[in-house]
Amino acid sequence: MASQIKRFLVGKPIATEQQHQERLTRTTALAVFSSDALSSVAYATEAILTVLILAGTHALGLALPIGGAIAALLAIVAFSYRQTIHAYPRGGGGYIVSRDNLGDTAGLVAAAALLIDYVLTVAVSISAGVAAITSLASTWGYPGLKHAAVEIALLCIALVTLANLRGVKESGAIFAVPTYAFVVSILGLITFALVKDMFYGATPVTHPVPPPVPEVGEALGLWLILRAFAAGCTALTGIEAISDGVQAFKPPEAKNAAATLTLMAALLISMFLGITWLAHLHQAVPNEITHETVVSQIARTVVGAGPAYFGIQVATALILVLAANTAFADFPRLASFLSRDRFMPRQFASRGDRLVFSNGILALGFFSALLVVIFQANEIAMLPLYAVGVFISFTLSQAGMVRRQLRMREPGWERGALISAVGTVLTAIVLVILAITKFTHGAWIVLTLIPVLVLVFQAIHQHYLRVAEQLSLSTAVKPPDLRRHTAIILVSGIHKGVLPALQYARSIAPDNVTAVYVNLDPDQTERLRVRWREWGCDVPLVVLESPFRSLLRPLRSYIAEVQSHYKDGMVTVILPEFVPARWWEHLLHNQTGWLIKTALMYQKGTVVTSVPYRLER
Amino acid sequence: MASQIKRFLVGKPIATEQQHQERLTRTTALAVFSSDALSSVAYATEAILTVLILAGTHALGLALPIGGAIAALLAIVAFSYRQTIHAYPRGGGGYIVSRDNLGDTAGLVAAAALLIDYVLTVAVSISAGVAAITSLASTWGYPGLKHAAVEIALLCIALVTLANLRGVKESGAIFAVPTYAFVVSILGLITFALVKDMFYGATPVTHPVPPPVPEVGEALGLWLILRAFAAGCTALTGIEAISDGVQAFKPPEAKNAAATLTLMAALLISMFLGITWLAHLHQAVPNEITHETVVSQIARTVVGAGPAYFGIQVATALILVLAANTAFADFPRLASFLSRDRFMPRQFASRGDRLVFSNGILALGFFSALLVVIFQANEIAMLPLYAVGVFISFTLSQAGMVRRQLRMREPGWERGALISAVGTVLTAIVLVILAITKFTHGAWIVLTLIPVLVLVFQAIHQHYLRVAEQLSLSTAVKPPDLRRHTAIILVSGIHKGVLPALQYARSIAPDNVTAVYVNLDPDQTERLRVRWREWGCDVPLVVLESPFRSLLRPLRSYIAEVQSHYKDGMVTVILPEFVPARWWEHLLHNQTGWLIKTALMYQKGTVVTSVPYRLER
Repeated sequence: MASQIKRFLVGKPIATEQQHQERLTRTTALAVFSSDALSSVAYATEAILTVLILAGTHALGLALPIGGAIAALLAIVAFSYRQTIHAYPRGGGGYIVSRDNLGDTAGLVAAAALLIDYVLTVAVSISAGVAAITSLASTWGYPGLKHAAVEIALLCIALVTLANLRGVKESGAIFAVPTYAFVVSILGLITFALVKDMFYGATPVTHPVPPPVPEVGEALGLWLILRAFAAGCTALTGIEAISDGVQAFKPPEAKNAAATLTLMAALLISMFLGITWLAHLHQAVPNEITHETVVSQIARTVVGAGPAYFGIQVATALILVLAANTAFADFPRLASFLSRDRFMPRQFASRGDRLVFSNGILALGFFSALLVVIFQANEIAMLPLYAVGVFISFTLSQAGMVRRQLRMREPGWERGALISAVGTVLTAIVLVILAITKFTHGAWIVLTLIPVLVLVFQAIHQHYLRVAEQLSLSTAVKPPDLRRHTAIILVSGIHKGVLPALQYARSIAPDNVTAVYVNLDPDQTERLRVRWREWGCDVPLVVLESPFRSLLRPLRSYIAEVQSHYKDGMVTVILPEFVPARWWEHLLHNQTGWLIKTALMYQKGTVVTSVPYRLER
Repeated sequence: MASQIKRFLVGKPIATEQQHQERLTRTTALAVFSSDALSSVAYATEAILTVLILAGTHALGLALPIGGAIAALLAIVAFSYRQTIHAYPRGGGGYIVSRDNLGDTAGLVAAAALLIDYVLTVAVSISAGVAAITSLASTWGYPGLKHAAVEIALLCIALVTLANLRGVKESGAIFAVPTYAFVVSILGLITFALVKDMFYGATPVTHPVPPPVPEVGEALGLWLILRAFAAGCTALTGIEAISDGVQAFKPPEAKNAAATLTLMAALLISMFLGITWLAHLHQAVPNEITHETVVSQIARTVVGAGPAYFGIQVATALILVLAANTAFADFPRLASFLSRDRFMPRQFASRGDRLVFSNGILALGFFSALLVVIFQANEIAMLPLYAVGVFISFTLSQAGMVRRQLRMREPGWERGALISAVGTVLTAIVLVILAITKFTHGAWIVLTLIPVLVLVFQAIHQHYLRVAEQLSLSTAVKPPDLRRHTAIILVSGIHKGVLPALQYARSIAPDNVTAVYVNLDPDQTERLRVRWREWGCDVPLVVLESPFRSLLRPLRSYIAEVQSHYKDGMVTVILPEFVPARWWEHLLHNQTGWLIKTALMYQKGTVVTSVPYRLER
């Protein structure tokens, strides 16, 4: 039954030979790889304003210079990543570049940071997408929908998880429509607004319920400005995606990828700055009470609450869901790399029925759903945890590139090393700013979790090394024939289910079979003795005493006694086990067999075998 | 490690032969069996007032006649149960009497009702005990303690569960102190108050925060009076306890038990009527805001907030905890009867390390904790669910007695049958009143749950009957020697862990061993073939193709092929399995072995055996 449900949800298995990789043109590649980066336009400006408003409305104007600084940073990082693309045409994610050039630990730190960030990408993007829809609903007279935000977000995560378990092809068409719709609608909104404002002046945003503004705000000092800057740095998340997937481009891969990266950065910068500028012109303010997004405020003020507004909100929601979908490709892939290198459980490296890394997909779905529940689908509250991981990965990855260029000294390496070095220093500084300003707001969780994860990765690695060493055949000798093999049938009574076990025992150890019964009730024991004479097939019956009603203790000492007689012998403990016809009926029987197997797992020279007697009904 | 924690919490195992039953005098028996019944004095009056206040303060006077009616009912039921004691000197709980005289279904309905009621007894009594303590704390200036009521209640349940898992002896002394302290303090309070009021007049209760009284109340009609009566009927819970435990009395058992029952009923009636009378004189009103109990209001008004008041509150809390403890004896015992009669999983009939029915104790602890959380430790809110079950059991049990007396026609049967018949009719009427008036307030949950439980009991019973029939030796024939036994070693590679499996396979099926490998990657397969030539111990290697990366499908068809050659043969699938040295390391390996075992569980003529290779580190 479980198997049928799985078939229905996930679909039929796909044959290994059908695995192939679609090669993408620049246009489709932009759609496939940029949804994560571009979608941050939906919340980055709001994140800056949410911090600045703490000092009062007069501070909101600072969003413009802060946005400019972030745009400049973004341009430098993008430029630096073009180098990675050329150096790692087979794909150079943060883990690979860092491990390759800076060693295992750096690689693991980058990997831990990225895994955490992918989980956050899903939680933040889905929550922001739901916020776009609830803002739309609220404007159109359904303010109650925001109370169902958590449920809607969980449903979206479940659907995206399922779609990925089915193994949706990274088909350009599916991605192209929402991505380009988002780019067109946001750039259209910005152009239209700038033209309209030029002629008619900018009308301020009106709120159905006015946003609460602190009467005595925080002081507007360097600290608040740095915090606002740090909050806006979420705009940079996802910019590394293209460097991970160079292999997916049509040849010349590296050249096409680099060009696409440049185009993506240009689009992202114009959209981010445009929205920030419009938020300033129209005095948009984050509204804690209505939970209406800043983009929604701007859009309905500029184009009215009509179909154009509807289009913008839907496109925003769709690209955010796509951004989450990107993480569902990235997380399982990175987990499979770590698993292949024996830093994560090997289950993450095996492809499921549908050729996808199912375990990674399930893990990502589970942890992002957990985050959504904990943070009640409030993406702005999650942002302090976000971005820290990305910047750790940026810094390590670019530092790795500097190291590589210094080592390889390929033609023109001086210029490349310089660019990477500037990128490293800048992202490192931003990382420190992020870590300090966001520390108490949640970044501490990420900064504690990363070293813990690295330690876990290393413990797992040590384990796999130990196993490989112990299993190695280099010190092995071919086993001789067994000197003696004894079978012990553990019976709890005499019934039809015992007979096949007796037959089996006599077949595997013809001359050495004993039946063992643990005496829990003298009357029952006596009855068993009598019936055993008739049905025991001449197998001798040994009754063990158990004053404390334990099965295991007397059994263990009996096995030890048998083994003490014959060195290098083997004992098979045979459990007659009847298999019920229905799954729920398993619950109605003592799980004694399972307990005995677990308990004897570490007992030397012992094998435990259940001989099933299958009930028909 | 898990085993050490268990030893610390539960204690060392106790030998079977140490089981014995302490015989009780009337004095200690009263203490042991009456805590559940007597403790209802702590909340029954309040339950009546909580309903009457809905019609305004003028309705509160009706508590007196309603209390009188309940007291009369109580006397009749107690009188009727004296008959059960004489008829079932080995113990006659609702389940046994109903099943014995009215058939299986009636017995199961009574059992389901009682099991639900025991869970409610724990939840209600512990919550009421906590309320006594928080009322005390509030009077003495710590009103905040009531916010921790749920946590305190859960802690109490955990402690009582643990104490019962350890197997506290039903030692008279432990029970005698709080029970008699409660009886003395409540009777003392009543006497003192009546005398004092006669001389000085009764001072009304004052409230730190006045209780909210509805300005426009409900109409004071028959409906509200019936609801108030139904609410007060919780005073009858626990009255059947003595009839369950006749065996525990010193001989003559039945006579001593009947006398104790009469005494208990007399005490209960005087205490309940006394408190109801005092509540009327002192105008005590349930207070939703302070959550102070009515008994606490009366006590501090009469004796002042001094040490006497402290004593009353602590005695009340203690007897309520004891009442919960009674359910921890009743529930596991009833579950073990049901399990013995094959209506519940057999796990409920086995005694744990400490000679107690551990699974029943754990189940009761779990479900009562769940109720406390759902109802936020508010015992008054739980009362509508309570009592319905008790009255179902009363009615069935007494109807069973009528049937029995009509059948047996022992000397004086006419009088006995009459008493039982009057009891049956009265409790049946009250049951209908309870079911109707409390239906929407929660009784529907119980009334739905009972038939569901009965159906589950019956399904379980059918299962056990089917199993017994299929396992019966009456149609069995002694098995002949196995005609052919084939061993198949499933290998995933060649390493040290495979060698003991090869050795074992050759020992159990000397001439019929094959190694099977599923081809998932042609390169690896080729490498295996080469190494197998050196290490395979001359066992032939069969490579199976698997286009969908499934292990099971090719393995299954291979087994089917082998079996098609030899009818009546047996196939052992041997899995070389290495056992990690640390428990957490199990998580790091594919659970393939487990999957294969589960999948082949229903495959005829197949045994799956893991041959362990134990890693040292």
